[in-house]
Amino acid sequence: MARWEPGARERLVVAAVDLFAEQGYDATTVAQIAERAGVTRSTFFRHFPDKRELLVAGQDALSRLLAEGIAEAPPEAGPLEAVAAGLSRASSAFGPMNHEIGPRLKAAVAASTELQERDILKSVGLAATMTAALVARGVPDPIAQLAGELGILAFKRGYAEWSEADSADEFAPYALKALADLRAATASLG
Amino acid sequence: MARWEPGARERLVVAAVDLFAEQGYDATTVAQIAERAGVTRSTFFRHFPDKRELLVAGQDALSRLLAEGIAEAPPEAGPLEAVAAGLSRASSAFGPMNHEIGPRLKAAVAASTELQERDILKSVGLAATMTAALVARGVPDPIAQLAGELGILAFKRGYAEWSEADSADEFAPYALKALADLRAATASLG
Repeated sequence: MARWEPGARERLVVAAVDLFAEQGYDATTVAQIAERAGVTRSTFFRHFPDKRELLVAGQDALSRLLAEGIAEAPPEAGPLEAVAAGLSRASSAFGPMNHEIGPRLKAAVAASTELQERDILKSVGLAATMTAALVARGVPDPIAQLAGELGILAFKRGYAEWSEADSADEFAPYALKALADLRAATASLG
Repeated sequence: MARWEPGARERLVVAAVDLFAEQGYDATTVAQIAERAGVTRSTFFRHFPDKRELLVAGQDALSRLLAEGIAEAPPEAGPLEAVAAGLSRASSAFGPMNHEIGPRLKAAVAASTELQERDILKSVGLAATMTAALVARGVPDPIAQLAGELGILAFKRGYAEWSEADSADEFAPYALKALADLRAATASLG
C-alpha cells in the first residue's frame, strides 16, 4: 500500500467511527483504527495527532468555508444574510460519506464525555470564526457575536436534521431552514 | 488547624489563582495550593477533584441560582424577562472575593488552553441550564435555546465588564445591561 494513498484520511475516519460505535471510544486504540483502515500507525499520525481529533477531522476545512462564504457575501448583505452565505459555502464539506457515518458518529459522541467536550470546543471555535468574519465585514459588536452564535446554532440544528434525513441531500437547505427558524424566534423573545 | 475550618474552600481558590498567576497553571501542584491556603492535601481533595475544577468552583451554585431565578419569574414574564430574573438571582454568587481575584483569574485562563477549555464547557453547561429552565416554563424550541444562548452571552459580557470595574458593585446591573444590548442587537441582524 502506498504511504500517501489517496483516501487514507477518509478511510481512517470511517474505521474510527465504526470501531467507536462497536466497542466504545475508550476501548479503541490508534493501532486498531489504522488496521481497520488498512494503513500503518505512522500514516494515522500523519493525518491526526490522536484519536480524539479524528472526530473533528473536517473542522479546519469547515472553518475556512464558513469564513470565505461570509467574506464573499455581497457588500449589501446584512449580518444574517452573510451567515447564510457562509453556511451555504460550508455545504460542500458534507458529502455522502459524512451522511453515512452520521448516526454512528452521533452514537459515539453520546457515549463519550471526552468526545462531547471536543465537539463543544469545535462548535465554539466555528462560532468564533463566523463572528470574526462578520467583524471583518464591519459588523459591530455585539451584533457580530450574536449573528455568529445564531450561525453555529443553525449549523448544529441543521446538521442534526440533515444527518437524520433518509437521503444524502445537500446540507445547505437544512442549515438555512434552521437559521430562518432562529431568526423568526428572535421576534418571540419577549 | 481544624479539618473543616470554614473558609478553606475560598482560601483554596484564592491561593490557586495567585499561584496560577505567579508561576503558571501547569507548573502549579495541588500540594502547593494546599500549602499556600494553609490546609492539607486531603482537605483540598474534599473540596475539589483536581486543580482544574478549582477554576469553576462556583459552577454548581451558579447553575442552581440561574435555574431558580428563571423558574420563579412571574408566569407572565417572557423568555428574556425570565432570563433576566435568572441573571439577577445569580448575582448573589459574585462577592468581593470574586471581584478581587477577577484580573488574576482572567490572566490564568488566558495563559492555559486547558483552563480555556474548562471555561468554555462551563459556559455551555450554564446555557443548557437556562434553556432547560425555560423549557420547563413552557417556552417552545427554538425560542428557549435562543434565549438560553443570549443569557450566557449576557452573563459572560456582563462578567467581563463587572470584573474590570473599579469597585465591587452588584453583578446584576452589568449582566442586565449586556442582556438589553443583545436584545437590541437582534433588531439589527438584517
